[in-house]
Amino acid sequence: MAVSTIRIALAGIGKIARDQHIPTIAASDRFELVAAVTRHEPPEGVPGFTTVAEMMAAVPDIHAISICTPPRGRLALIEEALAHGLDVMIEKPPAGTIAEAARFQPLAEAAGKVLHATWHSREAAGVEPAREWLKGKTIQKVICNWKEDVRVWHPGQEWIWEPGIGVFDPGINALSVLTAILPAPLELQSAELRVPENRAAPIAADLAYQMDGKPVAVAFDFDQQGPQSWDIIVQCAEGELQLSMGASQMAVDGKPVDLPDDPEYARLYRHFARLVDARQSDADLTPFRHVADAFLFGTRKQVDAFHW
Amino acid sequence: MAVSTIRIALAGIGKIARDQHIPTIAASDRFELVAAVTRHEPPEGVPGFTTVAEMMAAVPDIHAISICTPPRGRLALIEEALAHGLDVMIEKPPAGTIAEAARFQPLAEAAGKVLHATWHSREAAGVEPAREWLKGKTIQKVICNWKEDVRVWHPGQEWIWEPGIGVFDPGINALSVLTAILPAPLELQSAELRVPENRAAPIAADLAYQMDGKPVAVAFDFDQQGPQSWDIIVQCAEGELQLSMGASQMAVDGKPVDLPDDPEYARLYRHFARLVDARQSDADLTPFRHVADAFLFGTRKQVDAFHW
Repeated sequence: MAVSTIRIALAGIGKIARDQHIPTIAASDRFELVAAVTRHEPPEGVPGFTTVAEMMAAVPDIHAISICTPPRGRLALIEEALAHGLDVMIEKPPAGTIAEAARFQPLAEAAGKVLHATWHSREAAGVEPAREWLKGKTIQKVICNWKEDVRVWHPGQEWIWEPGIGVFDPGINALSVLTAILPAPLELQSAELRVPENRAAPIAADLAYQMDGKPVAVAFDFDQQGPQSWDIIVQCAEGELQLSMGASQMAVDGKPVDLPDDPEYARLYRHFARLVDARQSDADLTPFRHVADAFLFGTRKQVDAFHW
Repeated sequence: MAVSTIRIALAGIGKIARDQHIPTIAASDRFELVAAVTRHEPPEGVPGFTTVAEMMAAVPDIHAISICTPPRGRLALIEEALAHGLDVMIEKPPAGTIAEAARFQPLAEAAGKVLHATWHSREAAGVEPAREWLKGKTIQKVICNWKEDVRVWHPGQEWIWEPGIGVFDPGINALSVLTAILPAPLELQSAELRVPENRAAPIAADLAYQMDGKPVAVAFDFDQQGPQSWDIIVQCAEGELQLSMGASQMAVDGKPVDLPDDPEYARLYRHFARLVDARQSDADLTPFRHVADAFLFGTRKQVDAFHW
């Protein structure tokens, strides 16, 4: 039976927790933030603990946990949360490795708990309308340009240059939207990753896919001066779909489509509440797999050093 | 009901088909080779076709297909084979990308057909005895050295230097054995890939894993002069297990263990026959995921140019 209020804990009180999760939970009528697992300062008015076990011993009736810790090391936390009977929601990207990501769903199933591997960009206002509009259309070509200035959006964040990240930190958002709106799977044809000579991760990438035999050209750039772009264009025999501003805006043949003014994280938590009520998991790992494939099969080109 | 003779087709008549699959099927009392899908010369006495559809129209009562084509482009072939009602066995590595590998099992399930993603090294004579011996032992450390001279084993085979391959072509065999014998999952801690300045794939790799908190040190080298090694050592509180020659030989505390003299591919096809009889799939993608993780999270070091 569905509980009316889902008593939820937050693990990992960093920037994304403070910017999005805490205010979203505070504004929600389905969730109540009752505890935090963190080595740092817990949110105001909420008790903080260093482990799930300590939290469960101290705070009664916790139903769920939302995990915002860095992907590396998250598996142990998820295992502990499931073992304590919690439904689990995780920030993107889902895991530290492809191998451990493959273990999440079997663990949740064995525990009989809900697992929601979230992709916040899939909750952008234009994603569901775009998916609906594309149904039955004859797609001819897809173009995705995700180009931003890392100096503006991640100033001084050195973690972004660790292996496996770089421009794929925003890029995985683009892949999460593409894989949500297109009616058939993306199939990688070729990839070029451009890696600054003084960094371990790519600053730019060109990914060529096919979808049902049609070209899907994806360009990521972390060194974009001037106008920033988080755009997807789908050219169809019936007209052209444009998603812009990270799929928060949509147009067809240049004419804007009215969309509800609904923040991504509010929709994300409503989706988790529906999953908890229905006792269903939603743990699609496809965007993470596409990132792995780009690193596995992409050619690498060394480019000029990057400096903040 | 199990058929007594499994009428099987081979797709992809290259070196591995001629060296292993054709003689193994010929020597088997469960399989009969009845057709081939190939753009090249079919095996002697067997009709060849360019597509599964043509083959199915021309040859009656084919039950299964064994796929030895290169991993890229294999998805379409598998989909076609399943659509024609065939049980499917595939050579390693299973797929061209992680994203498409994830689609195999759902496709086979939807078709109600058997899928066997094979790892021939898991059929080496020492693998099952090693797995049995390790049960209940207290593992302290695992060391894996897979070091061979690519000039000897792959003379002039330029495909081996394509992105995503290199020393992981033999290395994935080591990973398939490790993941078969060890009682808990490997968790990647760090990886270094060494890439020749004139090649797109690593010639050597050092991979540090943990298994249940214990170190697993894996070293791959494609530039091994002198003695070649395909060795795994598992140090336990109770003694030391040694697998050598690609797990075809086993010793405990230096004393050789008697093993049946049973070729890998004969065991592989017997395993496939059991799966077909039981209507069960065996499609463990773990070794392929570990390769992707090494490329995704490994640091890269440029090393001297490689020349044949």
